[in-house]
Amino acid sequence: MRLLRQITPVLLCGGSGTRLWPLSRRSYPKQFSQLLGVDSLFQASLLRVADGPFAPPIVVTASDFRFIVTQQMEAVGIEPAAVLLEPAARNTGPAILAALLHIAQTEPEALVLISPSDHVVRDDKAFLAAISTASEAAERGAVVTFGVRPDRAETGYGYLEMDQPQTGPHATPLKRFVEKPDHDTAKAMLADGRYLWNAGLFLGRVDRLIAAFEAHAPHLVDPVRNAVQEAKPDLSFLRLDAAAWEAAEDISIDYAVMERATGLFVVPLDVGWSDLGGWETVWREMPRDGDGVATRGAAQAIGCRDTLLRSETEGQVLIGLGLEGVIAVAMPDAVLVAPMDRSQDLRLAVAALKSNGAKQATEFPKDHRPWGWFESIALGHRFQVKRIHVNPGAALSLQSHHHRAEHWIVVQGTARVTIDDKAQLVSENQSIYIPLGARHKLENPGKVPMVLIEVQTGAYLGEDDIMRHEDLYGRG
Amino acid sequence: MRLLRQITPVLLCGGSGTRLWPLSRRSYPKQFSQLLGVDSLFQASLLRVADGPFAPPIVVTASDFRFIVTQQMEAVGIEPAAVLLEPAARNTGPAILAALLHIAQTEPEALVLISPSDHVVRDDKAFLAAISTASEAAERGAVVTFGVRPDRAETGYGYLEMDQPQTGPHATPLKRFVEKPDHDTAKAMLADGRYLWNAGLFLGRVDRLIAAFEAHAPHLVDPVRNAVQEAKPDLSFLRLDAAAWEAAEDISIDYAVMERATGLFVVPLDVGWSDLGGWETVWREMPRDGDGVATRGAAQAIGCRDTLLRSETEGQVLIGLGLEGVIAVAMPDAVLVAPMDRSQDLRLAVAALKSNGAKQATEFPKDHRPWGWFESIALGHRFQVKRIHVNPGAALSLQSHHHRAEHWIVVQGTARVTIDDKAQLVSENQSIYIPLGARHKLENPGKVPMVLIEVQTGAYLGEDDIMRHEDLYGRG
Repeated sequence: MRLLRQITPVLLCGGSGTRLWPLSRRSYPKQFSQLLGVDSLFQASLLRVADGPFAPPIVVTASDFRFIVTQQMEAVGIEPAAVLLEPAARNTGPAILAALLHIAQTEPEALVLISPSDHVVRDDKAFLAAISTASEAAERGAVVTFGVRPDRAETGYGYLEMDQPQTGPHATPLKRFVEKPDHDTAKAMLADGRYLWNAGLFLGRVDRLIAAFEAHAPHLVDPVRNAVQEAKPDLSFLRLDAAAWEAAEDISIDYAVMERATGLFVVPLDVGWSDLGGWETVWREMPRDGDGVATRGAAQAIGCRDTLLRSETEGQVLIGLGLEGVIAVAMPDAVLVAPMDRSQDLRLAVAALKSNGAKQATEFPKDHRPWGWFESIALGHRFQVKRIHVNPGAALSLQSHHHRAEHWIVVQGTARVTIDDKAQLVSENQSIYIPLGARHKLENPGKVPMVLIEVQTGAYLGEDDIMRHEDLYGRG
Repeated sequence: MRLLRQITPVLLCGGSGTRLWPLSRRSYPKQFSQLLGVDSLFQASLLRVADGPFAPPIVVTASDFRFIVTQQMEAVGIEPAAVLLEPAARNTGPAILAALLHIAQTEPEALVLISPSDHVVRDDKAFLAAISTASEAAERGAVVTFGVRPDRAETGYGYLEMDQPQTGPHATPLKRFVEKPDHDTAKAMLADGRYLWNAGLFLGRVDRLIAAFEAHAPHLVDPVRNAVQEAKPDLSFLRLDAAAWEAAEDISIDYAVMERATGLFVVPLDVGWSDLGGWETVWREMPRDGDGVATRGAAQAIGCRDTLLRSETEGQVLIGLGLEGVIAVAMPDAVLVAPMDRSQDLRLAVAALKSNGAKQATEFPKDHRPWGWFESIALGHRFQVKRIHVNPGAALSLQSHHHRAEHWIVVQGTARVTIDDKAQLVSENQSIYIPLGARHKLENPGKVPMVLIEVQTGAYLGEDDIMRHEDLYGRG
């Protein structure tokens, strides 16, 4: 392996889908979920490019996810080079171009690896070998795509066509991109041997990739360049300029650039790859018993075959009895049951929930904030109970409420509570009362997480009854 | 309708099954559940015999259920003649005999209707007509059974054979009891027309019924008579003597008496009867759409057929997508998914859970107590949060804990709290602290339910860390 320079990973994690509902929701999508193992897919993606030939990563995400991104990076000890915030969703074309233009400001000839953050790679060593192969081609000026050898006639992915069947880990010329095929075409491509699944990864020099955008999607360049040039630092983030950004077309890099570009190369990716694009795919990637049954958490299968049972929360048992080819995913606020072959129709279910106004369609029970997270654990007539988790050193905004009073009982760690300019420490097993209307502030001055139980009482208990008088995190 | 005397209903509600898990569990079985509509099956059974020809009921139940029974009777405004507590489960034979012997102490010639309390009857008017028909025969000395005309070759019930097919509401001689048949026998009986399902109801004079026990199950009479004679009042209950009771055989009235008795009569019961003996039967009794889909609560079916989806708790959505012939029942602590034709194998699931030590096998999330109920809503390291509901006028025992302190925040109603002999009123939005070791007592002096949130902190938070210094409800 010979590397002239480090590779800068660009991790895309602004996406949000419904195909893994209820675990993945708009407010907390798939890439941040613990779908397999203890790391989230985003964390696993970070760790995959954390050392060896890689420079610190550039992360591109949606503004709504910025604090989840920060927390998940901190949890695995990754310090990014930059986190770019997209003011609105514009698909991968503008997101990647923004990262490229940002890097070009200081390192126009840098090698970059552009990668989704919601895929699985089983074999890190083979992954590094493929990256090494690709980077040699990229150093010579090539833009390299990565293709996964198909093991089934999958209709859910795009394909990459090579000139001829290719088994070794070499970069070979890419003939063309093939859009998601129908079943017969997929079968033919599987038999042919010259077709690989498009894994959505790209490796190339920044200047060459920008040149490809300029050649094939010139209309994207001005708005995205303006958004990068006018970007404003916001805490540790770099917030792209919203007005400029909104003028950029919502388009994928494949449509905007790659399908039109010539002279691309492809490197086979024999790394145990999966996009975890639906519950059936998750089931494939999980350990299964001899009957094809995969379980997670307190789930128990009795006389089941080819079935996925997931209990996502401690304290909730899930029993599957005599099921065949079924997916069941249980959470305290939402449960899904579907045959495995219908798992791609989940958007119907989520759309139905949404049209009924059910917040479970889009909202996760845990609400992640810059300072930690909270969840509602009981809601009754004129009261609500929340569990609030504040990170060490973090603080909530100075705030007040028009319609509710709050009782706080600290159950772990120590809080510093300020009420109408009077500050005091509240430690484990102590409580404090926040009268309606009082200006108050909650901080965790300690070195360990602080957990408190909040009991709210009042006629209106919505999240929007909040007056922020001062906020560390730049929120209104 | 001509009635010489009132009929005393004897409602049996000591049973406990697993066939409707997770809604029905050992600590809160089926008869107390809201399976259909807003009344529990027990409440619906009480209301069915609440007026017209009926005297106040005798209820026979297990000691563990006594406070649920009291609360459910109060909720529908029924004042029983007596509630007999079985010290241990002995099946219907001893339970019915105890009720008969209790009534015989004052009214040996009373007419009694013996009835399960976990069945459904749709047509109350037809039910009353059948009771009237039966009571005429009973007044002449007959013991009358009730039979439901079968509409399918059901193998889950016993059958009653008549001499000849019988359509009208007349009492006709019963030829014999038939035990649960195999499928072919059930089909033949369905075609024959002389067979009815044994509904488990009996009507007769107390002295005649006792005579039948004396004739066919004489070994039951002494132990049960002693248990009734030595019974002790306990609050509003009559607790059968445990030592005597335990000597009685565990046997059903069918095996002990009815299958051996002669001269019985049968009255057809065309009343929309069901025993709700499993989820499939519940599905049959629920309103269904044109695709055979029944839902309850926040459950939503998309592209399903012949499916039952029940979300038993507010705030938990259940999505069924593309299911056929499936049952899914969701609760916050337990979820069941099974094909409808496996719903009779639920005991396997419950046994598996039990062998894993999962408390959901037998325990309901809400814990009913003489004074109301509580549920655990969050459990963490060294803390637990409970919602506690105290009935108007009720009080918890004077108690103390060795290992935990408690914070109480009243969110509805008014509490009277005594701590180490000092009493005070705590009203909505007020809190109070119970130090570790302090003797304390909680009462609801008001006219409406009092709800409080309890936050416990300490190293050990088990229910058994309780020293009761004084208890209104006769508990240790």
